[in-house]
Amino acid sequence: MSAICDFSAEELRQLERELDASYQSWRARNLKLDMSRGKPAASQLDLCNGALAELKTTRTASGADARNYGILDGLPEMREYFGKLLGLDPANITIGGNSSLNLMYDLLVQLVLFGTAGQKPWGKLDKVKFLAPAPGYDRHFAITEKLGFEMILIDMTPTGPDMDQVEKLVAADPAIKGIWCVPLYSNPQGICYSDETVARLGKMKCAAPDFRIFWDNAYGVHHLDGETALADIFASCNAGGNPDRAYYFFSTSKITFPGAGVSLVATSAANKKELLARLTIETIGYDKLNQLRTLQFLPTPEALKAHMKKLAAEIKPKFDLVLGVLEKEFSGTGLLSWTVPQGGYFIAVDTLDGCAKATVELAADAGVKLTGAGAAFPYHRDPRDRNIRLAPTYPTLDELQQAIRLFCVCAKLAGVRKLLTSK
Amino acid sequence: MSAICDFSAEELRQLERELDASYQSWRARNLKLDMSRGKPAASQLDLCNGALAELKTTRTASGADARNYGILDGLPEMREYFGKLLGLDPANITIGGNSSLNLMYDLLVQLVLFGTAGQKPWGKLDKVKFLAPAPGYDRHFAITEKLGFEMILIDMTPTGPDMDQVEKLVAADPAIKGIWCVPLYSNPQGICYSDETVARLGKMKCAAPDFRIFWDNAYGVHHLDGETALADIFASCNAGGNPDRAYYFFSTSKITFPGAGVSLVATSAANKKELLARLTIETIGYDKLNQLRTLQFLPTPEALKAHMKKLAAEIKPKFDLVLGVLEKEFSGTGLLSWTVPQGGYFIAVDTLDGCAKATVELAADAGVKLTGAGAAFPYHRDPRDRNIRLAPTYPTLDELQQAIRLFCVCAKLAGVRKLLTSK
Repeated sequence: MSAICDFSAEELRQLERELDASYQSWRARNLKLDMSRGKPAASQLDLCNGALAELKTTRTASGADARNYGILDGLPEMREYFGKLLGLDPANITIGGNSSLNLMYDLLVQLVLFGTAGQKPWGKLDKVKFLAPAPGYDRHFAITEKLGFEMILIDMTPTGPDMDQVEKLVAADPAIKGIWCVPLYSNPQGICYSDETVARLGKMKCAAPDFRIFWDNAYGVHHLDGETALADIFASCNAGGNPDRAYYFFSTSKITFPGAGVSLVATSAANKKELLARLTIETIGYDKLNQLRTLQFLPTPEALKAHMKKLAAEIKPKFDLVLGVLEKEFSGTGLLSWTVPQGGYFIAVDTLDGCAKATVELAADAGVKLTGAGAAFPYHRDPRDRNIRLAPTYPTLDELQQAIRLFCVCAKLAGVRKLLTSK
Repeated sequence: MSAICDFSAEELRQLERELDASYQSWRARNLKLDMSRGKPAASQLDLCNGALAELKTTRTASGADARNYGILDGLPEMREYFGKLLGLDPANITIGGNSSLNLMYDLLVQLVLFGTAGQKPWGKLDKVKFLAPAPGYDRHFAITEKLGFEMILIDMTPTGPDMDQVEKLVAADPAIKGIWCVPLYSNPQGICYSDETVARLGKMKCAAPDFRIFWDNAYGVHHLDGETALADIFASCNAGGNPDRAYYFFSTSKITFPGAGVSLVATSAANKKELLARLTIETIGYDKLNQLRTLQFLPTPEALKAHMKKLAAEIKPKFDLVLGVLEKEFSGTGLLSWTVPQGGYFIAVDTLDGCAKATVELAADAGVKLTGAGAAFPYHRDPRDRNIRLAPTYPTLDELQQAIRLFCVCAKLAGVRKLLTSK
């Protein structure tokens, strides 16, 4: 296809008429499709129904009765399991409830109210700033916004956050207390942090002695093609002389069932001690029967990985479909660029500057709900209004085919109209 | 038995020798028993094993897929179920995770960080005070201590907190922001709040416009003998023109499994709106499959009540045993008084002033772990050092028989020694 960006005004007007006709015919079909969230499809959840089975034993490996109170940091066998799966020290793991997002919120609240490492509680400071590599995960940014932190946008690069920006900022400003990271198959671009990025995060000089990395490895085992390796953030922090810098989060929400899985936070011994001192106040403990249920369904890390392959077989055709249509419709047009993730849940596209909102609105008016434009940026403000997150997992293949074809019409229409305004 | 308090010094010395001999023979038996926490016994948990069954359906009543994200305030059928069970408006209920204690902590943190009803966040105030009717629940007090609130001890009466004290304090001091209440079968005394107490709590004038009642109805269906009625705290608050005053907590932790049940918070529409605005930031939602599991095991409020009768049949003989031994050993001695609860999990005893710590230490030295003396008071300080919480549910009947007989020897020995010091 020719580069639409180079069209004459007349060619653009002609194309706009064609696209508008196409768009109107799509509108007439009264679609009602939702591509807004990274939700598993029913067919994917069906592969997890083994987790609904009767729980055969309520004894832990050491013989404790998991039906009763106790064991605040999680069953030892569950900690060992995740340790093996993720290359973490089981002693540093604390098993949480059904939501790793809640562990993150809860931990940030701890830092606000009580502080860490003998430093002032963040809530007692005039200002707290947090680095927000973007495009990123909207719910991360919602937490730091709710807590009143000032978010500083960091550009994403193909190897992770722009580390030159990060290093410069954290070295200069003690009010910068942390950074959000989704290091593998980032939401929404599917970017994997390079070894160099991980090393630099661990060793960079921070003006704040209690600077913390929120390492949300949400897609740590969600490979679509082979396995992308992720460097060990704790090794990096230790090598840099910053053993308490990282909190590492993970959950089975997109391994078994969203909202009914098991989460974890791993961190240094000193940080875990602080964490447990708070947890023992704020809860009687997390659901140990659900830990046993998870172990019964996927008894070994190997079983979990085999299960993830089955899920990938469900998901990959959806990614391929979207990527195939984007390639066919936009290659060479200059109207759209996109990422080709090797795992995770999303594909991120960039329209021409100033066209993301218009595209999302056009799609919504024609019955296809996309993630809101700007959602992947702090305060929902995409400085160039160009990023859109596509979430291909929830619709069926048929639905997805329709949704993505409509999306293409909308993105082109918005792009052509934009080009016309500058002619 | 004669009133030991009236014994002569010589009689007391003789009795001390006998008790000490008895104590030494108990010590020689090397018991290792735990009566420290309100934990269900294995035999009681066995009655709940139906909750371990395969989950037959993951569809909600309205046809939604409970395996996936969404439905932040809980399944409508679960809210209706608890509404019927507890006489609450389902619209005002939010279903939580496995821990109602965590809902309380979380809500207090909300008040500290964000405030309520347009008032200043509590964390921005110089001082926050909280009323702590005591003896009370140690983990309530641990939360308000952790958050840095100043706790004010309120005496308990047979009809609930001393409302004369409460009314006077809250009317005068705007720093007093709330009160802890376990209104039915209070922990540890088993006291039930009278209708008058509930009415006065709802209508009392508070200097703080954002004064809040933390109404932890932990034992709302945990009757041992018939059913004790509890007045409607929301009706009282509404009648008093204070519709937003109460947060009502409940959980199935001691109905099915501790740590694997379902919790709830009920509150006014305005409060629930604030609550959900925070929850939507801090979690992706609570475990809906566990809600369905609860409904599958105990499909109706009537089924739940029938189940509670079975649990009571397990627990009541333990209460009867303890009460029988206390009656036999202490009636008329003047050394010990105790409550006779009609439900809940505890029996509270008062030794002579200054004898609780000594009694608990003697028991511990002989291998029986009791709840720490003072645990039921703010900052673990029992002003008269007399209150001990007995938790009869966890040991078997045989173990309990031994533990309570040893307890009697310890309490007598401590009492007699105390009397001797004043002779």
